Amino acid sequence: MRTIEWKHDGVHIIDQTKLPGKLVIIKCKDYERLARAIERMEIRGAPVIGVAAAMGIALAAKNSRGRTLVEIKKYLSKASEHFKATRPTARNLFWALERMKKLWVGALDPSDLVNDLIKEAVEMAEEDVRSCKAIGKNGAMLISDGDGILTYCNAGGLACVDYGTALGVIRSAFESGKKILVYVPETRPLLQGARLTAFELKSDGIPFKLITDNMVGYIMQNGLVDKVVVGADRITRRGDVFNKIGTYGIALMAKAHGIPFYAAAPYSSVDLSLTAEEVIIEKRKPEEITHITNVRIAPEGVEVLNPAFDRTPRELLSGIITERGVAYPPYDLSIFFRKSH
Amino acid sequence: MRTIEWKHDGVHIIDQTKLPGKLVIIKCKDYERLARAIERMEIRGAPVIGVAAAMGIALAAKNSRGRTLVEIKKYLSKASEHFKATRPTARNLFWALERMKKLWVGALDPSDLVNDLIKEAVEMAEEDVRSCKAIGKNGAMLISDGDGILTYCNAGGLACVDYGTALGVIRSAFESGKKILVYVPETRPLLQGARLTAFELKSDGIPFKLITDNMVGYIMQNGLVDKVVVGADRITRRGDVFNKIGTYGIALMAKAHGIPFYAAAPYSSVDLSLTAEEVIIEKRKPEEITHITNVRIAPEGVEVLNPAFDRTPRELLSGIITERGVAYPPYDLSIFFRKSH
Repeated sequence: MRTIEWKHDGVHIIDQTKLPGKLVIIKCKDYERLARAIERMEIRGAPVIGVAAAMGIALAAKNSRGRTLVEIKKYLSKASEHFKATRPTARNLFWALERMKKLWVGALDPSDLVNDLIKEAVEMAEEDVRSCKAIGKNGAMLISDGDGILTYCNAGGLACVDYGTALGVIRSAFESGKKILVYVPETRPLLQGARLTAFELKSDGIPFKLITDNMVGYIMQNGLVDKVVVGADRITRRGDVFNKIGTYGIALMAKAHGIPFYAAAPYSSVDLSLTAEEVIIEKRKPEEITHITNVRIAPEGVEVLNPAFDRTPRELLSGIITERGVAYPPYDLSIFFRKSH
Repeated sequence: MRTIEWKHDGVHIIDQTKLPGKLVIIKCKDYERLARAIERMEIRGAPVIGVAAAMGIALAAKNSRGRTLVEIKKYLSKASEHFKATRPTARNLFWALERMKKLWVGALDPSDLVNDLIKEAVEMAEEDVRSCKAIGKNGAMLISDGDGILTYCNAGGLACVDYGTALGVIRSAFESGKKILVYVPETRPLLQGARLTAFELKSDGIPFKLITDNMVGYIMQNGLVDKVVVGADRITRRGDVFNKIGTYGIALMAKAHGIPFYAAAPYSSVDLSLTAEEVIIEKRKPEEITHITNVRIAPEGVEVLNPAFDRTPRELLSGIITERGVAYPPYDLSIFFRKSH
C-alpha cells in the first residue's frame, strides 16, 4: 500500500495522524482537502508532500469549472498558491509546484491540460518510488554487517510514496542480508519515530529499539551507534541540510563521537536557489508542545518555542545519499544533478 | 509549602506525578509507603529522596514493634535495605542512609534512638534548604544580566526540600534583579521539565520558554543560550556528573557552541568512593517510553531502552556549583568537602 495514490474518485492518502493505532484512508476529492491534509500533517514527509501538491494541481485541473484556458490557469494558479502556503520548509513542495506550472503555463488545450497534469503527477509518484529504491541501493553500500544505525523522525515509506529515503537505505541493507540494529528516537512533538518509523520497521521485521530523543548521547557514548542516516526536507546547493528539529543536535553528537552522519534525499529536496540563511523554518502551534495525545502536560499559559526544523551545516555531514550516488564534501549539488529536471 | 515534611501523623509529601494538574499531598504513615513513593517517583530528585530515606528510617524507628534494641536495629536495617533497592543512581539516598545508620548502630536506648533519628532527619531537611540557598547564592554570581539560561529536568524546589539546586541558582539570580530568560526542555519520558520546572517558574513569575528536548541544538545555534545550569544525581570525586538522561547530550552541544555548562548540587550528591565506571545507571520500565499520560504512542510489542540517567564526563563541565562555592577543573571534590560529614 502506497502513502498516496491517484484514483478515479480523488487522491487517496493514509492518515498518518491515526497510525500506528488505526489504518485510515482519506479520500481527497478536491485540492483544498489535500492542502488541509498537508497542513494537519495527515500526510507529511518532504518527498510525498511534493507528490501530494502535484496531485493536488491535477485534481484542481480536473475539478476546475473554468470554461476557458485563462480561467483554468487562473484556478490552477490559485491552487498552487494555496499549496505553497501550507508548509514553507520542505523544498519538494515548491519543486513539484514549479514542475506542474511548467506544464500548465504553456498549455494550449483544456482537455489535454487535465490529462497531461494527471499523467505528470502520477509519473512523479513513480519517479519517487524509483528514486527511493536507488537511494536505498546507494546508501546500503555504506552500511556494514553488524552496524547499529541511528535514524530520526520518519524518512520512511510514509514520508515518500513508498520505501523511503533513510529507511530506504536501512531496508536495502537489511534486504541484502546485513545484520543491523536500528535505533529510533521518538521525535517529539509529533512522535513520527515512535509512531511511524516503529510501525514501518516492525511491519518489515527489521530489528530496532525505540528511545526518547534525549537518549542519543547515551547510546553513542555506549558504542551502540556505527552510522547515522536521516532524511532531509531541503538541502542547499552547498550541502546544508534542513530536517526535522533535533537533527542538528544528533549531527553534533555524532561528530563528537566520530560517527559518520549521512542525509538521504532525492533531487526534489535539493534547493539550488536559496542560501541556508534564506530558508524559512516553519513554526508550528504551541499545543503540539503543551499537549500530547490531546492531554495537557504543561501548566496553562506557558510560552513555548515550536520550530519544526533545524539546519545542519555541511561540515557535520559525512555524505549526502541521493538517487545519483553519494555526494561527498565539498558539496556542490548543482553539479551533482546537472542532467536532471 | 515544602516537598516533604515530618508531621505527627507521618511523612507528608507532594505527589509529583499529579503536578501540574493537581496538588495532592500523600501522607506516608509507614516507611514502606514512602519507599513506594520513591519507586513510583511520586517524590523524586536526588536531594529530596535523600531526605525522604532519612525520614523513612525515622518513621521505621517510630513504628517499630521491636522490644529490644537488637530487634529495633534489625528492623531499621531491613528498612534501610528496602530504601537502597528503590533507586540505585542518586548518591543522596545512600548518603542519607549511611548518616542515619551511624546514629542507630551506636544507640544504647530505644526511646532516645527514636527521638534522635527523627531529630536527625528533620535536621537533614533543614540542611538541604540551607544548602540550596547557598548553592543559589554561589551560582547566581555566574549569571549575567540578560542571560538566556538553559536548565534541564527539574532541579528545583520539588527535587529538594525547597528552593532547588539549578533552579536555586536561577531563583537567586532572578531575586537579585538580573533579567533572565530560562529555557526548559520537557524532559521525556516523565516530563519533569514540562510539568514541574514549568510549574515552579510560573509560580515564581520567572520568564521561561518550554521546548522539546530535541530543540536544544536549535536554541544554541540561534544564540539564545548563554549558560547551562543543571542538577546532579551523583558526582564522582573527580567531577563526573550523573544526571537525568539527556544531560550528556546537552553538555556536548554546549561544548560545541562554547557555552558554559554548570552542574549544581549539594555535598550529599558527591560520591567519594565509586569511579564513574562503577556507578549503576537505573533502567526503568518500557511503558514510560511506549505510553505518555497512559496513552499508547508506539506499536504493540516494540523493544525500548530506558536508562534514567547518563554520565557527563568532567571535561564537559565549566564548574560544579555547591554550597561551599564553585569547584573548577581539575576537580577533586574530596578536598573541596574535606571539613564536611
